[in-house]
This record gives sequence, C-alpha cells and structure tokens, in this order.
Amino acid sequence: MHIREMLADAERTGAPSFSFEYFPPKTAQGVQNLYDRMERMHSFGPKFIDITWGAGGRIAELTCEMVVQAQTYLGLETCMHLTCTDMGVEKVDDALTRAYKAGCTNILALRGDPPREQEKWEAADGGFRYARDLVEHIRKSYGTHFDIGVAGYPEGCDDNKDEELLLDHLKEKVDMGATFIVTQMFYDADNFVRWVQKVRARGINVPIIPGIMPIATYASFLRRANHMNCKIPEEWMERLEPVKNDDVAVRDIGKTLVAELCRKILAAGIHHLHFYTMNLAQATRMVLEELDWMPSPDRPLKQALPWKQSLGLGRRSEDVRPIFWRNRNKSYVARTQDWDEFPNGRWGDSRSPAFGELDAYGIGLTGTNEQNRKKWGEPTCIRDIADLFVRYLKKEIEYLPWSEAPVADEADVIKNDLIALNKRGLITVNSQPAVNGVKSTHPVHGWGPSNGYVYQKAYLELLVSPDLFPEIRRRIENHPDLTYHAVTKSGTLETNARSEAPNAVTWGVFPGKEIVQPTIVERISFLAWKDEAFQLGSDWARCYESNTPSRLLLDDIMSKWYLVNIVNNDFHENGTLFEVLSGLEDPNLNKVHEVKEAANGVSNGVTNGVHANGDATNGVEAST
Amino acid sequence: MHIREMLADAERTGAPSFSFEYFPPKTAQGVQNLYDRMERMHSFGPKFIDITWGAGGRIAELTCEMVVQAQTYLGLETCMHLTCTDMGVEKVDDALTRAYKAGCTNILALRGDPPREQEKWEAADGGFRYARDLVEHIRKSYGTHFDIGVAGYPEGCDDNKDEELLLDHLKEKVDMGATFIVTQMFYDADNFVRWVQKVRARGINVPIIPGIMPIATYASFLRRANHMNCKIPEEWMERLEPVKNDDVAVRDIGKTLVAELCRKILAAGIHHLHFYTMNLAQATRMVLEELDWMPSPDRPLKQALPWKQSLGLGRRSEDVRPIFWRNRNKSYVARTQDWDEFPNGRWGDSRSPAFGELDAYGIGLTGTNEQNRKKWGEPTCIRDIADLFVRYLKKEIEYLPWSEAPVADEADVIKNDLIALNKRGLITVNSQPAVNGVKSTHPVHGWGPSNGYVYQKAYLELLVSPDLFPEIRRRIENHPDLTYHAVTKSGTLETNARSEAPNAVTWGVFPGKEIVQPTIVERISFLAWKDEAFQLGSDWARCYESNTPSRLLLDDIMSKWYLVNIVNNDFHENGTLFEVLSGLEDPNLNKVHEVKEAANGVSNGVTNGVHANGDATNGVEAST
Repeated sequence: MHIREMLADAERTGAPSFSFEYFPPKTAQGVQNLYDRMERMHSFGPKFIDITWGAGGRIAELTCEMVVQAQTYLGLETCMHLTCTDMGVEKVDDALTRAYKAGCTNILALRGDPPREQEKWEAADGGFRYARDLVEHIRKSYGTHFDIGVAGYPEGCDDNKDEELLLDHLKEKVDMGATFIVTQMFYDADNFVRWVQKVRARGINVPIIPGIMPIATYASFLRRANHMNCKIPEEWMERLEPVKNDDVAVRDIGKTLVAELCRKILAAGIHHLHFYTMNLAQATRMVLEELDWMPSPDRPLKQALPWKQSLGLGRRSEDVRPIFWRNRNKSYVARTQDWDEFPNGRWGDSRSPAFGELDAYGIGLTGTNEQNRKKWGEPTCIRDIADLFVRYLKKEIEYLPWSEAPVADEADVIKNDLIALNKRGLITVNSQPAVNGVKSTHPVHGWGPSNGYVYQKAYLELLVSPDLFPEIRRRIENHPDLTYHAVTKSGTLETNARSEAPNAVTWGVFPGKEIVQPTIVERISFLAWKDEAFQLGSDWARCYESNTPSRLLLDDIMSKWYLVNIVNNDFHENGTLFEVLSGLEDPNLNKVHEVKEAANGVSNGVTNGVHANGDATNGVEAST
Repeated sequence: MHIREMLADAERTGAPSFSFEYFPPKTAQGVQNLYDRMERMHSFGPKFIDITWGAGGRIAELTCEMVVQAQTYLGLETCMHLTCTDMGVEKVDDALTRAYKAGCTNILALRGDPPREQEKWEAADGGFRYARDLVEHIRKSYGTHFDIGVAGYPEGCDDNKDEELLLDHLKEKVDMGATFIVTQMFYDADNFVRWVQKVRARGINVPIIPGIMPIATYASFLRRANHMNCKIPEEWMERLEPVKNDDVAVRDIGKTLVAELCRKILAAGIHHLHFYTMNLAQATRMVLEELDWMPSPDRPLKQALPWKQSLGLGRRSEDVRPIFWRNRNKSYVARTQDWDEFPNGRWGDSRSPAFGELDAYGIGLTGTNEQNRKKWGEPTCIRDIADLFVRYLKKEIEYLPWSEAPVADEADVIKNDLIALNKRGLITVNSQPAVNGVKSTHPVHGWGPSNGYVYQKAYLELLVSPDLFPEIRRRIENHPDLTYHAVTKSGTLETNARSEAPNAVTWGVFPGKEIVQPTIVERISFLAWKDEAFQLGSDWARCYESNTPSRLLLDDIMSKWYLVNIVNNDFHENGTLFEVLSGLEDPNLNKVHEVKEAANGVSNGVTNGVHANGDATNGVEAST
C-alpha cells in the first residue's frame, strides 16, 4: 500500500496514524533481537516502518534483507531508504529490484551523508549526485509502482543552512515525482509550523510527515540534537537538565515534552507522525501512551485476518491458510514462497504446488543446541516434557520447538483444560477455542472489518502415545461432531473425514461480503505439516548427545507417537474436546528412559554450542 | 445419480425410499397441470421419478420434454422409459441424446406394447426386436453413463405366460448390461416373494424394484388389474366389492390393503417401492401416510441447498445463486441454460457469461390475459395492488406476477411486518427473514447435511414510489448494518455497497466442510433481475386494454417506481428492516388512476383470451 494512501486514510478517519524508523544493527544477534522487537512493536499499531539505508557493503545488503523480512514475515508495510552515497546505477537498481520482489511499494530517496572519511559529499562514478536524480530514476524505471518520499529540512541541513535553497531543492525533488516529505527531527514546533507554511507557499502540495525523536536518555538526547543541528527550546533544557542523571525522570519528562510537541503538530493540521525509534521501544511507547494512541480494548489493533498477513510480492490477496502452521508463521511463509498463486477466498487444490520439500527451506529448529537445552532443560520422562508445555501455557516460557511465539491470549479460556491434558501426558502442540459469533472488534478474538461477527471451531492438536491412541480414536469416532486426522512419523493417515476437502475452522461474516474463511484443516497440508512437526521433535532430540536419556526419550516419542488433530464441528462450545479425552493418562508418564550402555556420566555429557542440525544425523536410527 | 446408488443408500440407511411413475398427458393443459402436481408431489420425498414412453410421434416428443422439465426445472432425478415399439435406431439415439443433455442418467429399457392396430408385436425396420437389444445398444453407445433398468414379470407378461422363458429373457437383459429390475404391478405378495427367489436362483443379482399400484377407484382398480393380468387376492375383493360405489371407502380400504402389501414386500428384504401414480397424488399419498413414510417435522424432507437444485447436464455442482430469482426458479434456470460453468462454492465473476438477453428466453408472464385478470383482478389504485400482495402473503392467492409459487413458510415470522408494509403502499416483491444459526435439520429453515447450522441475513425487495424513495435512501444510509441497491426501469443504480462483489445472504456451517454460501446479493445480477422484474410488471399491465385504469396504473408504476433491495447485514434480528421503513406511507395510496380520454365503458372493455405478450406493445409509451 502506498504511504500517501495511508495518509489520506488518516486524514479521512482522524484515527491515530504513525510510523516507526529502524536502522540495520551491526551484529547478527542484534539483527535477530531487532526482528523480535519489531514484531512486538507491531502491536503498537504503526501504519508502516522505515528501514534506513546502510551505506556501503554488508550493511546495504542488510537493509534489503530487513525489508524482505519485514514485508514477508512480519507483515509490516515497509518504506526502504535509498541514498546516492557510494551507489552506482547498478547498485541502486539491484536494491530496487529486491525491494520490488519483497512486495515493497515505498522508497525514501535521499542524498545521504558523506562517508565518514570524506569531508564533502561526492557522487560515485556513474552514480547519482542529488536525491532528485534518484527520484527521477525510480520514476523512470518503475512508473507509479513505488510511492517516493524525500527529506525535508525545517531547521536546515547538515551542510546547508540556506532555507530558500533547500526549499528550491525540495521543489525540484517533488517536481521530479516525489509524493511525500519526511522531515528531519526537530523539537521546535513553532518553527516547523512556519516552515510548513513556506513549503506550501512554494506550491509544494504533497503530504509532510514530521520526524519525531523520543527522548531515551539525556546523553543521547543532546548528542542527537547536536548531530542534527536541531534547536532545543529553552524550556526543554530547563526541565531536563536538572534531572539529567536520572534516566527514569528524563524519560518521564521527555515523553511529556515530546507529546506536547506532537499535539502542536497535530493541531497544525498534520495527521501522521514518524518516530525515530533508534531501534528502541520504550521511549516511543511512552509518547504514544501519553498521546493515548496505543491500542486498547476500546480501540483494538485492527487485524484483517486472524493470522498475520505476509506483504510479499503477490501475497497480499492470500486469505486462507491451514491451521497447522498457526504457531510457525515464518515457516509457512517460507515453505510457500515459490507458490504462484495464493488461495483467495477458498482453499483450492493444495496438491499441485503444495508445500514442496521440507529440507528445501531450512525451517528446522532455530538456536544452538546449548541455547535450546537451556530453554527446554533435559527431559528424562514424559512428565518432564508435559511440564514444559504446562510452563509454556502458563506463559512462564516463550517458545517451544513447535511454537515460535508465546501462547496467544485467546487460549486463556481453555488454558486450564490444556494444562490438565498435558499433565496426563497428552502433549498439546496447537489449539484454538470455539468462538460463536463475537463482534469483529472483539479485543481478543476479533479480526476483519467493523460490524462483522467472527467464529471458530474448537481445535486441538496433540502428540499421543500409541498406548492411548486406540481409545482416543474409538471415542472420537463415536461422537457425531468430531472429525480427526492422525498419523505417525512414518505411518499412514487415519481419519474419519469423508473427503479431502478443507474444513473451515475460522470464518467471519461481514457487511456486504461473502463469508471469509481464513483458516482451514485439510488432509494434504496436514501430511506436509506432519513431516515438519516430527522433524522439529527430532531436531530437539539432536540437541542432546546420543545415548543420553533426553535424546532417547525424544527420539522414542518421535518414532512411535501419533500426531492427532481434532476439530469440534459444533462451534458453540469448548467442552466436548476435553470431555472426549477425559480420564486418559499416559501409562508411562513417569518412566525414565533408560540408557542402554553404562550410563555413568553420560546424561550430563552434553557438548556445548553445536548447532541443532549439525551433529549425529544417525542418532534417530541408533536409538531405536 | 444412478438408481442403483439410491437403492444402495436405502439399504444402508433403512430410511423410506420410493419413486413415482408418471405418463405423458394428452393435452397441453394436462401437461401443465401434471408439472404442478409433480412439483407438489416432490414434497412427498420420492428418490426419483419415471416418465413412461409415449410410443409414436408427439407423445414420444413429450416424454423427452417432460424428462428435461423434471430434471432441469423441478430438480427431480428422472428415469426415462424407452421402448422398441415403432422405433428405429435413429429415433432411439435421438431420445438418448436428449435424455443425456437433460442430465438424465437412468433409462428403463422396454420392448413395449404393440401398437393398438397390430395384433402381434413387430420390430420397426432397422429397429430393435427385444429389450435386450436396446440394453446392448445403450451400453455400447454410452458406456456406464446410464443406469439401465428392465421390466420383470412376477405374474407373467401380456403375451407370454411362460415364467421360465420370461426368466430366461430377464437373465439375457441383465447379462446385456441392465443394472436393476422394475416389476409390473401385482397385489399378490406371496407370489412376488416366490418369484424373487426364482430370479435369485437364476443368478440374477441386480436389485428388484416392486411396482405398486395404489387404489383410486374400484373401477380403475379392476380395469388396471385385468389389463395387466394381475391376480387379485380373494380378501381384497371381499373387502372392496361391498363398498365399490363409495369412492372414499374404496380408497380408505385400498390404502390399508396396499400398505399391507408394501409391508410384506419390505419384510422380504426389499428396500424401495415404485408407485404407479397414474398421474394422481391422493391414492399414493394415502399409502405413504399409512406407512408413515411422508416427511414430517421429525423426519423433514432433506434439501441440499435452500433453493431447488437443477439436475440439468453440468448443473449438479451449482451451489450459488442470486436471491432475486428466489420466487422465479424456472426463469433463473432458463436464462442461465447456456452457461458453461456454474458457480461452485463462491460466486465468481458474473459479468462475462452473465444472464444473456431477457428476450431470448421467453420468461415473461405465463397464462392468458383473461386468466391473469381473473387471478389478480383489475387494480385501479395502489391500495388495490397492495391488497393483492397482502392476500398473497396470507396465502389466499398462490401466485403473483413476481412469484411463481405460494409464499414460503419461512416468511411466517415476518408476515405481519410485510403485510403492514404493503398496506402502506410499499410493495414487497421478495423477502427472507434473518436466521441466526438454527440446526440444519430445522423443519422450516434447515437445509444441507445433518449436524450443521444455517444462517440468513434478513432481506427485503420492494417497489417504492419516487415520493418515498429519497427518505428511504436517507434512512438506510444512516444505518451501519444496511446495504441497498435501488434502480428505476431506465435509471442508473444507486447503492451504498462499496464493491461489486457478492454479499452472502444465506450460508451454512457443516462438519468437516468449508462454509457453504448458496444465496447472494450482487450488483450485476440485480441489474439483470431489474429488467425481468419491470418486464413482468409491464406484462401484467398488458393484460388490460390500453387506456384502462389498471393499465395506466401499472404502466405508471413500472415507468416511475424504484426497485429496491435491502440487506440487514446483522443477521441476529428482523426488526431493523421494518423499523427503518416505519411511518412511511405512499401519498397516492388511494388515488384512482384517471383515464385521459372519455372513460365511458373503457374500464370494462377488456378482451378475452389474448396472450399476455400478444397485444399492444406500444402501451408503455402511450400511457406516460
């Protein structure tokens, strides 16, 4: 979606509208942490995010990678910065191609700072000299595909203080095809309002997005302001200087000052704020809270579908997914990356393009063996594993081998039932509660347009031992409302579903629309998920050395247990799924897995830091 | 569907299973009456019907026509009889082609009676001599497309009493490819059971369907039995003869005797009964009631979809229709007859193959002008028309120009509201009440598989005068749950619907399935319906002579009024649609339309018997 459309929306509805800017971190771990933070900050409700251009080499690469990640996996509408600094036409084109392929439709075209060793900015050989050249090039190459933003300088530019000249440049950039302006940071609201009037007087009519820098610490506040030649109003210094050594007080006063700045800007007829987050969440969140702009039960974050959409190229119309990857969103997006067409409205025939080969996508367990052992301990009996799942359900741990995110709030209504199941050795890999027509604006279950109603069939996916499975199957088959699929790692499918066609387990009824049915249970995709689910278990097993109790236990489970999904087709209640499993307990719940050979010392003899997929690929066979 | 599949179903479920046989009537009016009767008898729940072969000329034509009608418009699974009598290969092939094109998949292959003037049967030149030849030919030409039945003679054949020889012939017919046997009528259950054993002893294993002749009058009972050389058990004569002049008593005793016969047959392991209805409903219905085989609230007639499906070739997968033709089922099927592909699951793009030209299908008003004037009187003011609609809603009249069938039971819950609207001059052409998730087996609203839930959005379609429309539009547009489309005969569309995409107004949630959404409101098809709706009104106008008050009134309405549809997207309640129209009354409700020129005598000067489309095509222009 083009940024100017979002801005038009904001003007029309008057609803809070803001965006976040991130820059590429210097280390791999920093990048991973930032992705996690971006995902959490997604819940603040930014309309889009910016990724700044990391001039030169690896960091430039990283900008492109982050744009792909944000668009494709995080579902964040992204604006990629692009600078002339050190860039020839070829490099620019390469970056644009990658942005295009990521489904990105917004570019901020900048001249860029000169590289540190040079004093004055110079164009690369055959490269662009000014941002306006970049704008022109993008327009020429991509027509209207990209919305193009350019920088505005309310307080002058680093190497140019001539306001009139800077306005000339701005006019040139807009005339060349730029469709919005993002300003440098500033703290002087009055000057900004004055500057906007001058911009308008020049006949520049595209929207202006003010850049806001929240205050994290006193030191960074001063450093940033000085670096950007940004005027600090006297009152700000008077209020911040006395508490400069008290970070908490600085942030608290800072948020008040910045929020006041924002209010003045909004009062001047601006409808959207752009936050320079400096890759930090807290200071920005505090300003949003002060403005009462954070999502709340009264004004929940709107979600178009019950799962996070990917904005990858050609993926925007995707609106049906199998439920199995509910807790493995990235893996699903990754393994379907080569699909030509995504299911729209109804799940079509999933067999032909299907899920490809599992190995092709590198969607196994993440983290090192050491990290994973630290996260999940060293289980020696089924109860240990059950306890881990119980802790996950209680939100005491955030991840499981089968869940890349903390348990969702919607599970609250069935949490105690799920915990009880796990305590009896029925390991719940995935679930959703029944929802019988709640408003689409419901803070927990809601999704889709306003004035609609959403529904869910209760769903449960479990790992169950072969000791329990026959009785479970018997009970399910005696119940008219339940459909199930069950399969072992190598086994054939058992099911009471009469057809291979999808079973819609999430749907919504909205004004003037067809019924939207975005989540399904379906045979073919369950078989694809089965391979992934057992692979994740085996990956986890391989975090432990061969012939350790944990390794033997997990390998045993993966080789013998059933993966079972059950749908309660009567979406009015949650009870049946748990009643049908009542009284069942795994007979080997507390049995410690014995190590075959002399076990002295082996159970603690784990090696450190070996990657999950890196060792002992024969382990599965060896342990049976 | 093949008859043998239905028989297998009956054997599996043990549910009542029966079929009706009809023959082609001799007059056009007789044919029309029979169609109406077949439609009413559809509600008894026959698994299929038979149409006998009218040997020779026009009546043979009529058999094919009736098969098309039953399959395509009545949605009745039909078995076409075909005889060798007087038929060359060419005629047989022609009949088979027509059956195929009608979506018919069942043929009863017979030798047929000799034409009356001949004493002994002879094959036509180049034709077939025996039924087995016909079976062989059908199998050769159509493979397994048709299920082929043949006749069985438990009491011997008209010109052949040799049971062993008849069994030889039966064996030959089955060996040639026949897959079921329908017997001649009989009243001797013991003999039938004996005969079945002999058939099985011959190694004939295809299902046997007993032919049952209910008793309508004493005279017809004797005539039929004698004609077919059918033995009448002594007890039957003893009980029927004494009351032979009392038709009511004959039918009453007859139903008991025939039901007793049926019970004996069923006890012998037969699961399906075939009734020779003789084109009459009552005697058959009485037997079904005696057997407790009629649909009831406890065992409602199962309907796969909320509207009657067509079984025409390629149409069986059709499962989405616009709501506008809800009361004009035949017209919808007729005007979409040339479609290549029917919407399956979702309504696709209706623009390309669309609804063709209105004129092409001859789907105007049926009946003669005289008949229609008799049915609908001679309205001279809006209140007269309103009264007509009120009488329709009260089930005092069965048809309206816009409704080819009596008002549905489901309208009961909104009947009083609809009556009130009409009384105020808002003429309701179509409607459905809201349904919020009732069981799919609900006797009034239910459809689709068991253990499901069905839903409807309240829908209202009205003719409203230009005096009322602006206020109605204003009120609708102020309500967040309502979407509408409105259009005059020649006018452009007015709507608050944001897209051309369909709005699902009927849907169902079923175990293990996607959401089924068989009825929609959609812009493009509404425009096609608009033409038809105004045409029907103009057709009605033309039932009255030019310059009569009725003609002027109806022409005026058709040329100036709005056709408006309104959907309440909140499917929880019916009230809003009526509240939003409350207090509105047409200002000209009682105004009698003035005849422009000297009106003496003209208002009664209607001509008799002229067909609706036959006169005064300039009438519309002339009256404005």
